[in-house]
Amino acid sequence: MKLYTAPRAPNPKRVLMFLAEKGVSDIECIPVDLNGQAHKTDEFVAKSPLSRIPALALDDGRHLTESRAICTYLEGLYPEPNLMGVDATERAFIEMHDRLVEWYLMLPTAQWVRHSHPGLAALEQPQFPEFGASQANKRQAGLNWLEQQLSTNAFVAGDRFTIADITAFCTIEFSRLMKFKPGEAGYAAIQAWRDRIAQRPSATAGDQ
Amino acid sequence: MKLYTAPRAPNPKRVLMFLAEKGVSDIECIPVDLNGQAHKTDEFVAKSPLSRIPALALDDGRHLTESRAICTYLEGLYPEPNLMGVDATERAFIEMHDRLVEWYLMLPTAQWVRHSHPGLAALEQPQFPEFGASQANKRQAGLNWLEQQLSTNAFVAGDRFTIADITAFCTIEFSRLMKFKPGEAGYAAIQAWRDRIAQRPSATAGDQ
Repeated sequence: MKLYTAPRAPNPKRVLMFLAEKGVSDIECIPVDLNGQAHKTDEFVAKSPLSRIPALALDDGRHLTESRAICTYLEGLYPEPNLMGVDATERAFIEMHDRLVEWYLMLPTAQWVRHSHPGLAALEQPQFPEFGASQANKRQAGLNWLEQQLSTNAFVAGDRFTIADITAFCTIEFSRLMKFKPGEAGYAAIQAWRDRIAQRPSATAGDQ
Repeated sequence: MKLYTAPRAPNPKRVLMFLAEKGVSDIECIPVDLNGQAHKTDEFVAKSPLSRIPALALDDGRHLTESRAICTYLEGLYPEPNLMGVDATERAFIEMHDRLVEWYLMLPTAQWVRHSHPGLAALEQPQFPEFGASQANKRQAGLNWLEQQLSTNAFVAGDRFTIADITAFCTIEFSRLMKFKPGEAGYAAIQAWRDRIAQRPSATAGDQ
C-alpha cells in the first residue's frame, strides 16, 4: 500500500494519526504538492477523482479516498486497538460523535480558515471573507457541544480513545492557523483534553 | 424506537428511505416543526445536542443523531438487504462513495439552497447569496464525477444498490427546490439512474 498525503494538512493527519495509534509504520507515504497543483494532474485524478488527499493505493490497484473510509479499511486490516467500534451499535455511536465533530466543528473551521486566511487563497477560490467570519461564529455551537461532552467524558465518544478524538484533535490543531487556543477562548475541558491527547506518540504524525 | 423527522427534509428522507429498503415500517415517526423552531427547544436539544434531525430514540433511552450513524445502527438491527457493505473492505468502498456524494454534491447543494432560497432564510442566518451561487459552481465537480461513475456503473458505489444511492437520490431530489434537473443540465447518466431509483417503492419515503 501507498498513502498519498501532504504535510500539515488536517485530513492526511487524521489517517497518519490513526495508523500511528495502530502501531503501523511500514506504509510508504508519498507527498503531493498541493500548492504546486499536483493534485489536479490527470495522473493524480485517476487515483482520486475529486483531487482530494489523502488517497490510499491498495496492492490490487484500487484506490480509496476520504479519510474516514480509509480508516474503515485500515481498521479491518489492523483490528487492534479498536478505534471505530466492536459491533454495529458501538460503531454507530462512535460514527455519530465523529460526524458531529466533522460537520459542526471541522467543516466550519475549514470554511473559516479557507475563506479568511491569505495562505489558503491558492486552494479556495473565490474566498468570501464575510462568509468565513460567519463560520467562526457557527463553529461555536460545535465547540460548546464538545466542551460539554468533554466536561463529563474523558474522550470525545465516551470513556475510551477513538477515531472521534483523532478528528477533533486534528481540527483543534488546524485552528492554530487562526491563532485559536481553546483555553484562551473559555473552553477549559477542550484544552485539558487537547493537552492529554498531545502527549500521545501519535499526536505529531503528519506534522513534518 | 422513535424517529424524529421532518417532511420533505433531505436528511430524514435518507433514513426513511433506508428503512423502506429494509422493509421496516413499524418505527414511530414524530415530526419536528423546524419552521416553528421546535428543534431549538431544551426538550429536543436533550435528544439532539446540535438541534439536528433526524434523531433516533432507542428503547434504552439513548439517542442517536446523524443520518449515516443512524443507518449504521439500523444495518446492525436489520442486516438484510445489506446496504453498507458485508465486510470492512466493502464497507470502506461504500463509505467512500457515500462520502464523495455527501461532501462534494450534498454539501455544496445544501449551501447553494440554504444561502440562496428565500424559503430557507428561517434556517440559515445570515444568508450569503454570492457564496451560495459559488457553491452551485463547486457542485459541478461532484456532478461531473457522479455522471462519470454512473456512465460505467449501474449504481453509485458499483453494481448494486447501497446507501450511497440513497444519499445521492435525496440530494438530486432536494435540488429540485432550485429547479435543477440533471438531464436538462447535460447529465444524462445521472438522469437515467435517478429515473430508475424513482421507480423503487422506497423513493417516496419522507415526502409527505
